[in-house]
Amino acid sequence: MEYNLNENTLEEELKYTGDFIKVVRTKVTLPDGMEGYRDIVRHPGAVAIVAIKDNGKILVVEQFRKPVEKELLEIPAGKLNKGEDPLEAAKRELKEETGYSCEDIQYLGKIATAPGFCDEYISIYKATGLTKGDTDFDEDEFINLKEFSLEDLKILIREGKIEDGKTIASLQFL
Amino acid sequence: MEYNLNENTLEEELKYTGDFIKVVRTKVTLPDGMEGYRDIVRHPGAVAIVAIKDNGKILVVEQFRKPVEKELLEIPAGKLNKGEDPLEAAKRELKEETGYSCEDIQYLGKIATAPGFCDEYISIYKATGLTKGDTDFDEDEFINLKEFSLEDLKILIREGKIEDGKTIASLQFL
Repeated sequence: MEYNLNENTLEEELKYTGDFIKVVRTKVTLPDGMEGYRDIVRHPGAVAIVAIKDNGKILVVEQFRKPVEKELLEIPAGKLNKGEDPLEAAKRELKEETGYSCEDIQYLGKIATAPGFCDEYISIYKATGLTKGDTDFDEDEFINLKEFSLEDLKILIREGKIEDGKTIASLQFL
Repeated sequence: MEYNLNENTLEEELKYTGDFIKVVRTKVTLPDGMEGYRDIVRHPGAVAIVAIKDNGKILVVEQFRKPVEKELLEIPAGKLNKGEDPLEAAKRELKEETGYSCEDIQYLGKIATAPGFCDEYISIYKATGLTKGDTDFDEDEFINLKEFSLEDLKILIREGKIEDGKTIASLQFL
């Protein structure tokens, strides 16, 4: 038997407003007619970019991620500004974080990063025809730029040296 | 030049305690000596299981995910209980969500799902030697069980019918 899995919202209470996340607690009807609660983190959404240089190397940024208390290797990414088109955001973030502009950019797919408790989707793009210019970090953003071949990225993933979910998932779209 | 990217905690304030997430606002020193704030969602951590039947099919659960307001196709997964060994959690969640027990289970790797604002890591396991028994859902958990070949999973990802980040990332470890 297949369940109808839908959960309807009965009430929603705003619990926290941060710099870019909000947390709401939502009362829902469950598929069996009972009531339940879901804590939900609301996020503006984000983009990530697999940026491939003419020599085949892929741009990777190294960034300290306070939640996990370590530096992670990730493909360039960033939050959407309010009302911003994801493709424009992808070009903007690529430029800000790496200094590279791209001639061609192509939508690959999107991922829900943590759909059990968060509404964030990351749209993933492939950028090619790269030209190096200046970076333009956010004022609280500090980044080291690196580059790896696709084969080396796969090795880094298997060795546990790349842990970032969006970076690992993005290779599945190439 | 390579930055030292570390951010030290100066203060941390608990902002919200939900059923399993907490939100803290952390004041940090930035690499340039300035101060900044990071909103951080604390999560107990989770496991996910690539469970492969003797016929090669991979178990997938269909679940309504309230944060994204839709049913998603995902590999079986769940949160760690307090103090629980991830490998034991993987066997438990596989049994609870699909009814299957496994003879062999192997650690594949781990992913940080949303390291920009959340500390969740998901440890991913591969389970084989499956035997079907009864499911044992959590009281607020409603699931349809499906199975797909690896090739069909890759097609579903490319067609945008699988959006879950951990499910997409997990294939990179196979």
